[in-house]
Amino acid sequence: MTGALWVVGLGPGDESLLAPAARRSLEEAEVVVGYRGYLALVAHLLQGKEVEAYPLGAEMERAQRALTLAASGRRVALVSSGDAGIYGMASLLLELWTEREGGPDVQVVPGVPALAAAAALLGAPLGQDFAVVSLSDILTPWEAIARRLEAAAIADFVIVLYNPRSGRRTWQLQEARRILLKHRSPVTPVGIVRRAYREGQQVRITTLSGLDASQVDMETLVIVGNSQTRAGRGRLVTPRGYRRGR
Amino acid sequence: MTGALWVVGLGPGDESLLAPAARRSLEEAEVVVGYRGYLALVAHLLQGKEVEAYPLGAEMERAQRALTLAASGRRVALVSSGDAGIYGMASLLLELWTEREGGPDVQVVPGVPALAAAAALLGAPLGQDFAVVSLSDILTPWEAIARRLEAAAIADFVIVLYNPRSGRRTWQLQEARRILLKHRSPVTPVGIVRRAYREGQQVRITTLSGLDASQVDMETLVIVGNSQTRAGRGRLVTPRGYRRGR
Repeated sequence: MTGALWVVGLGPGDESLLAPAARRSLEEAEVVVGYRGYLALVAHLLQGKEVEAYPLGAEMERAQRALTLAASGRRVALVSSGDAGIYGMASLLLELWTEREGGPDVQVVPGVPALAAAAALLGAPLGQDFAVVSLSDILTPWEAIARRLEAAAIADFVIVLYNPRSGRRTWQLQEARRILLKHRSPVTPVGIVRRAYREGQQVRITTLSGLDASQVDMETLVIVGNSQTRAGRGRLVTPRGYRRGR
Repeated sequence: MTGALWVVGLGPGDESLLAPAARRSLEEAEVVVGYRGYLALVAHLLQGKEVEAYPLGAEMERAQRALTLAASGRRVALVSSGDAGIYGMASLLLELWTEREGGPDVQVVPGVPALAAAAALLGAPLGQDFAVVSLSDILTPWEAIARRLEAAAIADFVIVLYNPRSGRRTWQLQEARRILLKHRSPVTPVGIVRRAYREGQQVRITTLSGLDASQVDMETLVIVGNSQTRAGRGRLVTPRGYRRGR
């Protein structure tokens, strides 16, 4: 008896950015497992299903439970917001799965990641090479995070900051700002997007020196421009270089 | 008279990954402008519309034409594959738009980027911080690209290589490999995904030393693991660290 397991990226939350493949996985699943905050985003698609809603932080429990259910022959969807592969459930789930033998088929269903959603609302800050860094030092030592920030700043990457701040992690964003300011101008444009494509959405454009951590929480993404990023008419743009080349 | 302009990410090409918001933009547009290869992916959605199909490389012409049409009061969709903000048309279009006054409303519609599509087919290689680098030195000097590769390698980012190779750009991927091998083990897992979610899709897992440039073309994405990325059961996984922390 072999079930199926879809690891599904829901996109930012709004149904207009839920890919048809993700919707189909939810429809085909008998059991849907996930963080309760994300399940609430798609509650209307889950009627008549078994739903197993977990609190924040129970990632290991969610992954193991989804694997167990699927191994017992059920069709299971394990959900993340955004893209399931980018700081979502896919890596932990597959880490556990690759250590097993046999067991369910696993398929990762990609979604619109938070970085693409935030960038679209800001304009086009990701027009050149970019680096994606999570400021959460729960799973990664701060020294490794600081080293990546420094390297990305020196090499003039646009930088996308995930998990910039939470109730408990309050100093990391200011420390990141300090590291970036060693290598990048204080007037570097910065975009702050809170609750992209969700109720209460907020989009702000500021500068690296003006970055106010109190406007940032765990539902916020911060995008720091590179040396060529410009702000104009309420948008951020990192030119790709078409006009320089001509 | 003010038209509307949507810069639309089509996702990888398969309709199952075309977001409803992107579909709606195509439906609401009177004129659809884009590279003819991408327009072919959504040909069935364009019936009855004016379609302006351009060859590869005519990005400036496409952006200017879309702006002109929208400024004349038309409803226009300018399309990219993947996400329009990631090496797509959004940055050039907004660069031109921010230098104007007045003119059409512009909205960027995010999509499932190629990096998320390729990663999902490989497993979960993007489970930790990653850097995204285009190897095309048409718009960016190779020195800047090499500097970014070196920085990303040293700081142990997973690295996503866009535009790894084309008919004319044949040496850049081997040179990137050489730079990465200075800092990363020859057995570092590498994923090669060609035509993700399109006809003729190919997914391969190899190592940095085994990376064969002849398997790579302009429709391919290459994802180079970091020091923690593992291959197993035909998948790539970069563990996020949940198990180390316990």
